[in-house]
Amino acid sequence: MAAPALHELGGRAKAAAGAVAAATGATKDAALLAAADALEADTARVLAANDDDVARARASGAGATQLDRLGLTPARVTAMADGLRHVAALADPVGAVVAGGVRPNGLRVAQVRVPLGVVGIIYENRPNVTSDAAGLCLKAGNAAMLRGSASALASNQAVVACLRQGLAKAGLPEDAVVLVEDTSHEAAVSFMQLEGIVDCLVPRGGPSLLASVREHATVPTVIDGDGNCHVYVDGAADLDMAVSILVNAKMQRPGVCNAAESLLVHETVAPAFFALARPALAGVTVVGDDRAQALWPGMGTATEEDFATEFLDLKLSVAVVSSLEAAVAHIARFGSGHSEAIVTDDVHAADRFVRAVDAAAVVVNASTRFVDGGELGLGAEIGISTQKLHARGPMGLEALTCVKWVLRGEGHVR
Amino acid sequence: MAAPALHELGGRAKAAAGAVAAATGATKDAALLAAADALEADTARVLAANDDDVARARASGAGATQLDRLGLTPARVTAMADGLRHVAALADPVGAVVAGGVRPNGLRVAQVRVPLGVVGIIYENRPNVTSDAAGLCLKAGNAAMLRGSASALASNQAVVACLRQGLAKAGLPEDAVVLVEDTSHEAAVSFMQLEGIVDCLVPRGGPSLLASVREHATVPTVIDGDGNCHVYVDGAADLDMAVSILVNAKMQRPGVCNAAESLLVHETVAPAFFALARPALAGVTVVGDDRAQALWPGMGTATEEDFATEFLDLKLSVAVVSSLEAAVAHIARFGSGHSEAIVTDDVHAADRFVRAVDAAAVVVNASTRFVDGGELGLGAEIGISTQKLHARGPMGLEALTCVKWVLRGEGHVR
Repeated sequence: MAAPALHELGGRAKAAAGAVAAATGATKDAALLAAADALEADTARVLAANDDDVARARASGAGATQLDRLGLTPARVTAMADGLRHVAALADPVGAVVAGGVRPNGLRVAQVRVPLGVVGIIYENRPNVTSDAAGLCLKAGNAAMLRGSASALASNQAVVACLRQGLAKAGLPEDAVVLVEDTSHEAAVSFMQLEGIVDCLVPRGGPSLLASVREHATVPTVIDGDGNCHVYVDGAADLDMAVSILVNAKMQRPGVCNAAESLLVHETVAPAFFALARPALAGVTVVGDDRAQALWPGMGTATEEDFATEFLDLKLSVAVVSSLEAAVAHIARFGSGHSEAIVTDDVHAADRFVRAVDAAAVVVNASTRFVDGGELGLGAEIGISTQKLHARGPMGLEALTCVKWVLRGEGHVR
Repeated sequence: MAAPALHELGGRAKAAAGAVAAATGATKDAALLAAADALEADTARVLAANDDDVARARASGAGATQLDRLGLTPARVTAMADGLRHVAALADPVGAVVAGGVRPNGLRVAQVRVPLGVVGIIYENRPNVTSDAAGLCLKAGNAAMLRGSASALASNQAVVACLRQGLAKAGLPEDAVVLVEDTSHEAAVSFMQLEGIVDCLVPRGGPSLLASVREHATVPTVIDGDGNCHVYVDGAADLDMAVSILVNAKMQRPGVCNAAESLLVHETVAPAFFALARPALAGVTVVGDDRAQALWPGMGTATEEDFATEFLDLKLSVAVVSSLEAAVAHIARFGSGHSEAIVTDDVHAADRFVRAVDAAAVVVNASTRFVDGGELGLGAEIGISTQKLHARGPMGLEALTCVKWVLRGEGHVR
């Protein structure tokens, strides 16, 4: 897609955004429910399109993981439809009065939550992101401009067709959900630079996508960043609890951003903790610094790059530290500002860690895996932000909105 | 200043940020009050430094406006000190619990307001910005890295010395306020790219500064943008009220961003309104479209560029529109997303305008001049954001903070 075509597509989304922004919650929910019904009714067509994508991916040598991420089943299509129904059931964030009152001069002021406008989503592989992301954008009163990967193009087209059916059924403009069908790198870069059209771009993908967004994007972005998450076992930790938390954080779902990648252990408990942790981490490749290696026979050597790496796999880096402050310094150096956990029975240690660690989420005596929109009560999430501005941590519907001040006077002048 | 020196300076601010972030409100307030006292005690030294700046500026041919912006007087120094005392009296934004509760599994979660870290401010000319901005950063628990203009360097150095005295007196690190003394363009660009050091950059200045930030900045920014603000006089307006609001919005302080730059008038009231407005706007240069010119003898011609320009002067562009929707479309095309006003007695027109105009602030029957942190009850403002993400409209202390999730469990795993 040449840039003019992309602008034209974006212009259609922008033109549609006003109607979605002004729509009542009931109308938006009707569109979401109709889209869910359309997805289920068209399951055969969606699966046929997905079959084409999978066949192309297999022919081009895609691995099992990639094929699994790409592939849809009737159950997965139902899950997508149910996801839209779940979003429909959430409270509408639009119109909430965030702050306000009457000023001493009688001027009535209110800060009101409003949609962003056009939200761009750029993502990889999984076709379910198409309906998940579009559903959240729509619920928050935005038009969604979606750019998935080349490998999932046919699937995404089929899913978007269902979403647009739902919009039309509810009397909303179909262009409130548009798909960028040119999946070239050039089109992706142009998409990141659609100033005046895209009000917020949310990239969802791996390090190379994020690097490209950081390099090229000129539109405002909220980055769903990587998670190099640590579990710090304090000198005052309950070691059985620490093992249970570490195993959960590392092994329950190693491929997600809130999984633990690195273990820090206070020197006073390192021998005893390692004796418990070693059998519990069977199947996990463990690499460590000198002090950890000395206490854990057979442990590989961790390079600085290992400590900086989000493995997203059954691999763990380990360091022994001399103090809580050393753990905090290690996290400041290698962490990605996502989720950092401490296990301790010492209330003062917990408080110091919570205060000193600069991350989207700090976890005391629980698994990092709880840093998730659903677990935190946000209802659903569009991603987990590791930036500080606008949204930090799991992003729910509010992250897809902004605010507007409304001032009402009776001829007030200064 | 070569980039390494800038990094070193930033590193010192970053090292100091932790202490300010952890300081109690009482300690931060003590620093602000001590800095205010130091400013007053050192008034003679601050004025002498300022005399040097003014002499240099005059020698290099600066105009009266620029000299007035640059010049300090004993009263202005007192006003700077009082500004710091005012900020000390505001509520501390840090530590506020924004959201939270107990999840069904017993996990206790809270979203807590925390400082950003190092806030960079890049600004022009006025030395009072040095203390105003640093005071707000400090109150919000941040270290401030300040980069003023070359013309105000000696003044800024003297003011920063007082601020650092205040920090030291309160037992806080002096490097919580640092001044970039290299005022070259290259240093400014390096400053905008201090990734890993500057957590948020707030530029305060004219169009060329903002353009440079948009082009060069790689650190997160909140832009204190320009205000091409409109007053729309609806067909159902009280015309006397409309004149009073227009005159206030245009003339009370034409050089500020919330002053009106453009007048839109519904065709049905244009002849009557112009008859009232013309004498009231005596001294204002008025340019308009064909329809406006036909009704206002002697009105100049407004080009498209005029309609897009923030004059910041006693100049006004005027257009006659056929409907409220045409006014909204004009604002969407030419507005800068700052503050837009409607004057009307029709409640439906007011609601339509509030909903349809996409701006930081929408004003009904009042002057755009009320879009100001103080007037809205924010206590003080670091600027007025015209972006949608993070902060929109007048930015108070909250805009200088972010949030952190804190999760507390008892061995919780998923």
